[in-house]
Amino acid sequence: MSTDHADVVRAYWAAAEARDWDAFAATLSPDVVYRVPQTREVVRGREAYLRFNTEFPGDWHVRVDRVLADAQGAMSRTTFTVGGEVMTGLCLFTMDEQGLVAEVEDWWPEPYERPADRAHLTELEG
Amino acid sequence: MSTDHADVVRAYWAAAEARDWDAFAATLSPDVVYRVPQTREVVRGREAYLRFNTEFPGDWHVRVDRVLADAQGAMSRTTFTVGGEVMTGLCLFTMDEQGLVAEVEDWWPEPYERPADRAHLTELEG
Repeated sequence: MSTDHADVVRAYWAAAEARDWDAFAATLSPDVVYRVPQTREVVRGREAYLRFNTEFPGDWHVRVDRVLADAQGAMSRTTFTVGGEVMTGLCLFTMDEQGLVAEVEDWWPEPYERPADRAHLTELEG
Repeated sequence: MSTDHADVVRAYWAAAEARDWDAFAATLSPDVVYRVPQTREVVRGREAYLRFNTEFPGDWHVRVDRVLADAQGAMSRTTFTVGGEVMTGLCLFTMDEQGLVAEVEDWWPEPYERPADRAHLTELEG
């Protein structure tokens, strides 16, 4: 099952990048729930989630960096580009019994300053 | 291998929470590299990484919410508590040939306001 879940996640992102919304919908459970815990946003159901993606603002592009999967679901790290901005996205997926995406938890970590109280413990690179 | 990698990650977190630094060190490759991409911090080598953890500021506690693993590594979602603050941590692990932690990529997403241009596409919960 774990290989299947990774394949579903790769198909999900490939369809999103291609704006192939039929292929994208085919990866989703009818009752899919999407959450952005950082904003407390939630989108419930395949139709609403398709609309969220098709109408999402900006000419965004997504590249898959890494996918991990197990018997329950999967996670992906992606590089998301919109305008001149480049962000890392981390998604956790839970699949239903048919192997379709039942839950998506979408995380967007932003840059921050290294806290002074651990500056003696780390170096800076890049 | 993938089950082993999940076990190593669970042992890593259990040892960190218990401040059992011998057990923690036993999960690490001698050449482990730890990175916080959001701050560009890096810590290289087992000794430096042990010091980073043993001297990390605050009376922190960590609970493992979810672990996924594959042949290359693993990821974890944890709930990290320090003082009154509760944060979600997302870690990506890459293991060496001995199944020890060779790379850690540590992500700390922070709450943010829902962007106005997608407010018509989501609900807020919680």
